[in-house]
Amino acid sequence: MSIRTGIVGISGFGGGEALRLIAGHPAFELVYAAGESTAGSRLVERFPGVPPALADLVIERFDPKALPELDLLFASLPTGRSAEALARVPETVKIVDIGGDHRHVEGWGYGLADVWPERIKGLGRIANPGCFPVATLNALAPLLAAGLIATDNIIIDAKTGISGAGRGGSSSFGYAESNENLQPYGLLRHVHMPEMETAIAQLGGASAAGLVFTPHLVPMTRGLLVTIYARGSATTEACLDAARRFYADRPFVRVTEQPPQTKWASGSNLSFVSYAADPARNLIIALGAVDNLGKGAAGQAVQNANLICGLPETAGLEGAPVWP
Amino acid sequence: MSIRTGIVGISGFGGGEALRLIAGHPAFELVYAAGESTAGSRLVERFPGVPPALADLVIERFDPKALPELDLLFASLPTGRSAEALARVPETVKIVDIGGDHRHVEGWGYGLADVWPERIKGLGRIANPGCFPVATLNALAPLLAAGLIATDNIIIDAKTGISGAGRGGSSSFGYAESNENLQPYGLLRHVHMPEMETAIAQLGGASAAGLVFTPHLVPMTRGLLVTIYARGSATTEACLDAARRFYADRPFVRVTEQPPQTKWASGSNLSFVSYAADPARNLIIALGAVDNLGKGAAGQAVQNANLICGLPETAGLEGAPVWP
Amino acid sequence: MSIRTGIVGISGFGGGEALRLIAGHPAFELVYAAGESTAGSRLVERFPGVPPALADLVIERFDPKALPELDLLFASLPTGRSAEALARVPETVKIVDIGGDHRHVEGWGYGLADVWPERIKGLGRIANPGCFPVATLNALAPLLAAGLIATDNIIIDAKTGISGAGRGGSSSFGYAESNENLQPYGLLRHVHMPEMETAIAQLGGASAAGLVFTPHLVPMTRGLLVTIYARGSATTEACLDAARRFYADRPFVRVTEQPPQTKWASGSNLSFVSYAADPARNLIIALGAVDNLGKGAAGQAVQNANLICGLPETAGLEGAPVWP
Amino acid sequence: MSIRTGIVGISGFGGGEALRLIAGHPAFELVYAAGESTAGSRLVERFPGVPPALADLVIERFDPKALPELDLLFASLPTGRSAEALARVPETVKIVDIGGDHRHVEGWGYGLADVWPERIKGLGRIANPGCFPVATLNALAPLLAAGLIATDNIIIDAKTGISGAGRGGSSSFGYAESNENLQPYGLLRHVHMPEMETAIAQLGGASAAGLVFTPHLVPMTRGLLVTIYARGSATTEACLDAARRFYADRPFVRVTEQPPQTKWASGSNLSFVSYAADPARNLIIALGAVDNLGKGAAGQAVQNANLICGLPETAGLEGAPVWP
Repeated sequence: MSIRTGIVGISGFGGGEALRLIAGHPAFELVYAAGESTAGSRLVERFPGVPPALADLVIERFDPKALPELDLLFASLPTGRSAEALARVPETVKIVDIGGDHRHVEGWGYGLADVWPERIKGLGRIANPGCFPVATLNALAPLLAAGLIATDNIIIDAKTGISGAGRGGSSSFGYAESNENLQPYGLLRHVHMPEMETAIAQLGGASAAGLVFTPHLVPMTRGLLVTIYARGSATTEACLDAARRFYADRPFVRVTEQPPQTKWASGSNLSFVSYAADPARNLIIALGAVDNLGKGAAGQAVQNANLICGLPETAGLEGAPVWP
Repeated sequence: MSIRTGIVGISGFGGGEALRLIAGHPAFELVYAAGESTAGSRLVERFPGVPPALADLVIERFDPKALPELDLLFASLPTGRSAEALARVPETVKIVDIGGDHRHVEGWGYGLADVWPERIKGLGRIANPGCFPVATLNALAPLLAAGLIATDNIIIDAKTGISGAGRGGSSSFGYAESNENLQPYGLLRHVHMPEMETAIAQLGGASAAGLVFTPHLVPMTRGLLVTIYARGSATTEACLDAARRFYADRPFVRVTEQPPQTKWASGSNLSFVSYAADPARNLIIALGAVDNLGKGAAGQAVQNANLICGLPETAGLEGAPVWP
Repeated sequence: MSIRTGIVGISGFGGGEALRLIAGHPAFELVYAAGESTAGSRLVERFPGVPPALADLVIERFDPKALPELDLLFASLPTGRSAEALARVPETVKIVDIGGDHRHVEGWGYGLADVWPERIKGLGRIANPGCFPVATLNALAPLLAAGLIATDNIIIDAKTGISGAGRGGSSSFGYAESNENLQPYGLLRHVHMPEMETAIAQLGGASAAGLVFTPHLVPMTRGLLVTIYARGSATTEACLDAARRFYADRPFVRVTEQPPQTKWASGSNLSFVSYAADPARNLIIALGAVDNLGKGAAGQAVQNANLICGLPETAGLEGAPVWP
Repeated sequence: MSIRTGIVGISGFGGGEALRLIAGHPAFELVYAAGESTAGSRLVERFPGVPPALADLVIERFDPKALPELDLLFASLPTGRSAEALARVPETVKIVDIGGDHRHVEGWGYGLADVWPERIKGLGRIANPGCFPVATLNALAPLLAAGLIATDNIIIDAKTGISGAGRGGSSSFGYAESNENLQPYGLLRHVHMPEMETAIAQLGGASAAGLVFTPHLVPMTRGLLVTIYARGSATTEACLDAARRFYADRPFVRVTEQPPQTKWASGSNLSFVSYAADPARNLIIALGAVDNLGKGAAGQAVQNANLICGLPETAGLEGAPVWP
């Protein structure tokens, strides 16, 4: 089976990773690529290692009214840019939006694929979760589902590689400024908070209004870790057990006793979760590690696309992480 | 004035940074260097950029009974190794111990120099604080002194560059394993916790027994950041004001409105603190950024040595941070 | 078809990359893993992202007399360690030796797969080229075959990521010492020179005795670039054309007009070559970029194994490079 | 003595390093700072670790007709931008131009301070050498002066940290694109070649027209290494001796037997040179390592300023390199 597939936003890091995954996918056939800053180039000019079969595909400027015949479209546009652009894509084209405009929006499924696969199957419009939310929610879902933690009083200390800041952009993300530097930012006002509060409330059955979220930029290209502090009296073993049960049949989540390192997931769609608890302090620490461009963006998007296309969930995503 | 100075533990990163600072110090004259793995080498063989005047000093194996005439000794030995070794150093030699064996120990002053300079002046034995504690305590001291936060329920999410793990050691700190990797470790059982609990209790006048501390290794050589979550109802501005007053006359602490980045302090003895508060959530976030080898080790040690030798506190420490 | 496959030397970086590639290979089934420092561990303890089907395979201490039934063995042992160990492996087991002991040795084929595939097919013992030689020879082969450069007077300035120095080893490869550092080493006496001289002489039909080779360690995990200065009067276009013809049917070599960057090949078995010539100066610059663990080690080894097993040359190696 | 000093181009990396060095200089007093992208900011807003005495200096837009009273001006503007701007600075203001517009230009001394200090003293207009030329010329000068190498047939393989590409600029220098990547560029047409050819010809007394120069971007912030291949029959020891004699009284050049690493010079004005020769091949390899922002830019500029102001050559430049 060949599913005619397109990417819009191929100039960015999320779009580039989608290209890599689609190029190795058994069912998706890339027939269309669009990007603003790279329009007019052949793929091989931007991605010198692209497989020869895709080398000469010319990157177009996105025009929803002039699309080729497509079954599936991955969109990876900056937040604020996809709502209008995608509104005019024909309904017959399934869409996975890696960008931030359609999360918890009417008419769009929320693609937290490891947790809610049944909500995704068969839909035509999926909003991929943000990179911070997916790492956070995958780590918290088993605890919330089992009632082991409260939904209020959750503190998320998050760290991401620089590719999470997107391509180009400000010189704050220049090499010399970012290297050998650790940068906290967006204290008490990060754009990802409402998305997380909504999902935590759904998972835990109570408001998550007091959520605290602090992101940091770490001098590495890929990788994302959340260190979450929550209140609950379960033991470490009880938390691990809850997660093992919750993810027993899920292919991409690994529950580990050791605190996970971001490199464990690099280049893959894996999501590592672990827990350390101190009942005497009513404290549970949950850890989640992903590749921000894999499970945090394009890997998750392909997983969602597999689900909505009726393919095996792992199609094209079997590759083991790159180490070291 | 020339103060005859020695370093023991010059093979490690803390000892090496002490060498750099002493080489540029107006009063300290390096006359003795000891190290285990480098014994027998001339300084220039290990530190090719050392000033010519020090190039030919031969690194010795440490023997407290065979020291040259010394006024001052910096010790930078692995934890567990300095207690016995330094016990036999003559009392006439002032000691600043960068290592971990003498913190909050009878007969040794605790060298939290930015906060308690008066407790340090005139002493002969100073235990340098650990790198995580100094960043944490410098950020919390103004809040604790002003009663703006409670001493219980403090969560410290800490991130350090790899030099914080010491030299040599396990291949976990090899380049290929550490690069492009973010590693949480030592959950709920880090060696620095008692040191911090003791100091927080002294600063706040109440037990800090519930302290939570989670360290992470960040892929950079130098730099350390703590992101601290505490309970209190003060505003951001009230926290900043408390810190500005507390550090009004202190030369090395900078209170900033922007969240500090580790690179701001790189190569210097500076300590950056900042705050973000949300009274509606009874939450105060305190941030502290230092160079783990500067303020977190050798810089702080030189500051302590200045204090016990009756020198200007900033002698030899005026250098601005290296950027980028 | 399932080919029963083993890896010896799985603790090192080359062995780890072989594991990743075999895990994704359509015909190779991993049934045996051996390693010294990791013996006794299950694979998942060392490689947390390994596919579940391989997770519980226990790493053994290598004993050539107690091997399970194997069709194929990848060996990735330190130079000097494989000659004796592999001598006792039954002849029925095909071997690809990633290590350095069997290059240009009687009874072993030299696995420069992109250049000499016909010499490899059907053999039972293949010595993988070194990482520096493969990048160098792939870049030079078209020029030598076409008689565009002389075999003498070749200067190779080589740069490799730190994983090329192997795992563990000296603290010279520690993170803090290697990061933000560029290290030339082994001037005029590198171990890879005889291997290159032999192959260049074969390719060019004349002695390459005057070869100059200077390696440098670059602060990155993966990636290897050679910048080669040779004498010849051909134009840039003539060099590029010679390479395009030479590699017309070869699947892994990409001839580019732009100077190749190491990241173009990262995580893949690709080999990029390019040329810049100045006939007025009788100068030809040849550039070769590979992933030192891919084409420079495990990728090339899998390619060789495909050739000796009669499989499609690209089996298990189709993955596009990881970018960024 | 206080020398009223200004910096124009403080937004860039060279200007920032000049600020750091001037802040620690015993005679230079910073009274003026100009920059385009940062105009209107106080220094502390751009350089949070700047000493308090300079914190409130406001960065101005450069206007040569509205300068305050100045004795000395450091200019660090992009190539092509300083010629016109500096032409209107009053003659009473001494200028050191770190940028590229005035090298080997009438009316401007060429500030290769370690080699030609006597040509610099007392001048009012100095053009700092480029970062690649200074590392190259410092390594070659002793060989050329002693007639040990020919001026033709010199190949320079150069590697620089990313800060050498300047601040801001294209997203090719973004973190995610540059990290874990080694990038050759500008083959056979680098802008620094005429500068080097002119100086080599002056040093060697013959044309250097055949010079080959290949720069590479290395994933590190600071550091620059040149690996130079020249023709000559001297031994390694003869080359080292020539360099030791040549630099016997020069304070910043270190002649080493080991191949120098870039980190040896980091944060300093030091210049490391070394040699390896093979008389049988008529080959001499010369190595030069510097900090591209130190000796390659602002360090050298301060050294030049010391020379033209009649100060000790090492004033403000005594700091040992930062390691690790």
